Amino acid sequence: MKFTSKIFNSHPDTDGDFFLGIKKILGFKPRDIEIYKRAFLHRSVNKKDPDGNPMNYERLEFLGDSMLGTIISKHLYNEVPEGDEGYLTKMRSKVVSRKHLNELGKDLELLQFVESRIPKSHFGENIHGNVFEALVGAIYLDRGYPYCEKFINERVIEPYVDIDQLEGKVISYKSLVIEWCQKQKKSFHYNVYEDTGNDELKHFAVKLTIGDRILAKARATSKKKAEEKASKRAYFALQNKIENQQD
Amino acid sequence: MKFTSKIFNSHPDTDGDFFLGIKKILGFKPRDIEIYKRAFLHRSVNKKDPDGNPMNYERLEFLGDSMLGTIISKHLYNEVPEGDEGYLTKMRSKVVSRKHLNELGKDLELLQFVESRIPKSHFGENIHGNVFEALVGAIYLDRGYPYCEKFINERVIEPYVDIDQLEGKVISYKSLVIEWCQKQKKSFHYNVYEDTGNDELKHFAVKLTIGDRILAKARATSKKKAEEKASKRAYFALQNKIENQQD
Repeated sequence: MKFTSKIFNSHPDTDGDFFLGIKKILGFKPRDIEIYKRAFLHRSVNKKDPDGNPMNYERLEFLGDSMLGTIISKHLYNEVPEGDEGYLTKMRSKVVSRKHLNELGKDLELLQFVESRIPKSHFGENIHGNVFEALVGAIYLDRGYPYCEKFINERVIEPYVDIDQLEGKVISYKSLVIEWCQKQKKSFHYNVYEDTGNDELKHFAVKLTIGDRILAKARATSKKKAEEKASKRAYFALQNKIENQQD
Repeated sequence: MKFTSKIFNSHPDTDGDFFLGIKKILGFKPRDIEIYKRAFLHRSVNKKDPDGNPMNYERLEFLGDSMLGTIISKHLYNEVPEGDEGYLTKMRSKVVSRKHLNELGKDLELLQFVESRIPKSHFGENIHGNVFEALVGAIYLDRGYPYCEKFINERVIEPYVDIDQLEGKVISYKSLVIEWCQKQKKSFHYNVYEDTGNDELKHFAVKLTIGDRILAKARATSKKKAEEKASKRAYFALQNKIENQQD
């Protein structure tokens, strides 16, 4: 394998663009942008700080992982007063699962900011979740606890934490819609794109096409949430048909 | 075994005393004292909230454990810039080890506040650490992150976290003093008592007697720290003798 000294970094060249990209993801202004740069620095770049200590995102990932767990813990504590310690632990590990965090990091397209000497195509899935955690660690150092809480509320809890769904009590509207389409042999397509609105926070929009008709549109702070919203709208539009199917 | 419905609770009967006792441990005023009561409620009491949910310290312990880990992580991140993720994880687990937390809970005599139907003598060691974590959880809910950080700084980091000692790079002064006494066949005694000063925060004092002489006194926010301080003083007082021994 030939890894040249070339640094693979598709992210915008100027600092201004990096700043704006991060700001859009955070929904607030970074204070010390250098901390955020470190959150995207892969160990392969082999950077050192002035004291000779290795600089990469792994230490920030350690910090962010812990903070993320704490804020999710508090949310679950308040939301599920009937859940005991074991239940809360189980639910937390569902929320902060690798799969979940990778999905989050991918939605936010964090990979574009990663600086590495390894071609990005060589990374496994976990890079997405790892840099997401590192980003939380960077927020913690840069803006403290309250901003971590705000960010995790907007980026993890609001779009991803549905207790009933995590418990498997309710199935997602997306599954219901897909199931109906499959039974009816109808094609369906979720067209998700970044919404280039003027919001402080990055948003996603989705168009759900069933057959040859755009059945629903929606907009949210995560792809998953946007798809679920559009599915819910489609579900109610299709409800009579779906209910007849279940008879 | 006969567990009557008697509630074992040696803690002061009136709320005022509980409030003052907790305030002394925290070093600041609780806002909602009810949250702190829950931090000392053993499941054997079988209390329920108005909605019928079990009330005991276990859920708060879940929350406090997570917050404690986060604040220790941040401390280690800042203190050990050369440590990688694996190192930080290892050091954190040393700081928040069961043994360590039990020691902390014992020093603060948290057991006195525990309400249970099981005689306190029947509890294992871990009750001390568990209610310590629950107390951190209570602070988190009652006063938020900044007070957790303050409390953990004063009660865990300042008295207990010495990176060099955790790494085994330096041996404690207490060990040096004990070793010397044993070689010299001198008796030694650490007399630790709660210092009833007017401080906001509970303090401990210690008198170190070697042979028949009080060789050093010290005062700190934990028993361990007070003993270590007194040992350091005794060590320097004894230094010539100790160094001769090492020749």
